[in-house]
Amino acid sequence: MADETHGGPDRRSVTAKVLALLDAFTPRAPELTLTQMARRSGLSLSTAYRRAAELVEWGALERDAEGRYRIGLRLWEVASLAPRGLGLREAAMPFLEDLYEVTRENVQLAVREGHELVFVERIAGRHAIPVLTRVGGRFDLHSTGVGLVLLAHAPVDVQDGVLRGPLRSHTPMTVTDPARLRALLAEVRRQGYAVSAGQVTTDALSVAAPVTGARGEVVAAVSLVVRMGEARPAALAPVVQAAARGISRALGSGPAVR
Amino acid sequence: MADETHGGPDRRSVTAKVLALLDAFTPRAPELTLTQMARRSGLSLSTAYRRAAELVEWGALERDAEGRYRIGLRLWEVASLAPRGLGLREAAMPFLEDLYEVTRENVQLAVREGHELVFVERIAGRHAIPVLTRVGGRFDLHSTGVGLVLLAHAPVDVQDGVLRGPLRSHTPMTVTDPARLRALLAEVRRQGYAVSAGQVTTDALSVAAPVTGARGEVVAAVSLVVRMGEARPAALAPVVQAAARGISRALGSGPAVR
Repeated sequence: MADETHGGPDRRSVTAKVLALLDAFTPRAPELTLTQMARRSGLSLSTAYRRAAELVEWGALERDAEGRYRIGLRLWEVASLAPRGLGLREAAMPFLEDLYEVTRENVQLAVREGHELVFVERIAGRHAIPVLTRVGGRFDLHSTGVGLVLLAHAPVDVQDGVLRGPLRSHTPMTVTDPARLRALLAEVRRQGYAVSAGQVTTDALSVAAPVTGARGEVVAAVSLVVRMGEARPAALAPVVQAAARGISRALGSGPAVR
Repeated sequence: MADETHGGPDRRSVTAKVLALLDAFTPRAPELTLTQMARRSGLSLSTAYRRAAELVEWGALERDAEGRYRIGLRLWEVASLAPRGLGLREAAMPFLEDLYEVTRENVQLAVREGHELVFVERIAGRHAIPVLTRVGGRFDLHSTGVGLVLLAHAPVDVQDGVLRGPLRSHTPMTVTDPARLRALLAEVRRQGYAVSAGQVTTDALSVAAPVTGARGEVVAAVSLVVRMGEARPAALAPVVQAAARGISRALGSGPAVR
């Protein structure tokens, strides 16, 4: 079935256009009018309208009372089958709960996606230090504890790409010098956990450990985020590492977990 | 761009074919070979291959080390923007955690999707009675506590559709008689909570309450699932209703929450 283009040739495939419509939604713009959706996806209004209607029919998009579009529950259902999303989260949850119960601090679980990380789960203590993360949200790899773990165990080309920069400086403590960052990553691999002390916000410290999959590869990172000065990283590391090992075991990882 | 069909005319649009590929994945089949994906979506191998390649390029699908396809993290990221999925879940989480902490029982959050419910969150106590639910999983509306709440507040045509049946009997306690079910739903609306006693499994009892949205409409249901005989429903109802009200308030619901 042919897809007509308007207002000049749009050489993208229909699949690409459909995905562009989904891509129009962001954490800052979770609800969009047809016009906004068309503009953000670079589609003509009529193409956006027809594709959106098909997505609504299936349930990938929903319309609210004012006629605005938003991501539909049906898409969330299918996406819940992503092994690196809810699958990982389900396996990890008992260990994250335990970690939260014994510490009452922020607990985070993240995976790497390209040159960034995505938070898959977060348990935020009501009285714990506020953190900016959102489940499903992204962050850079070179500043957070989970990011440093994921970067330390990433393929060489990913490390090189990240180290080439730009490396955003969140605070004066963020390590943005490539040589220092490389040494830091080697240290993370050597000691088996990462410490981010004031490198994201000056008042927070995180300790993170790697989660390994069935083939021993690092598939995720788990961390505890506490207020700076409240605890020594070396004292937090064992409980974080124990949780990471528990999750690794639940994922079928062998005994070679470090 | 035209989409060729093979082995007979396939009149579905490209969008429908792309969505059919995603639909091929289920909780029982979260990883599929190309052949399985093509068969389940009713697409020719070559069409499935081309569409899947586009989905992989965008990140809606991923391939594992053995070349099998699975739902990708990128789709999960976009889907996390669904207001009725993670959005609701984020607003509800503190109240669900509180409910779990004071009871140590199973806590569930569900929304209605057509004639079924979808579990959006579940906190399972390690020592609580085992329940069969999965986040992102579906269940019928006429048996569980959350289902009865959602059905009691569903539009009339949805109620009529569900009551026309078939109504699956999980245990001898499941209410499958339309007239009795209608009376039960009226009771749920009247008392402000639902009780499912042995209607899903003979050993479990659940008490559920409605969560309302910004316009006062019921958007979700929260429940506590305990072992039969461990607590009286009337004793559990207030704590479940309090959690439901807290979530409703977080969603911007007015004071008219019942």
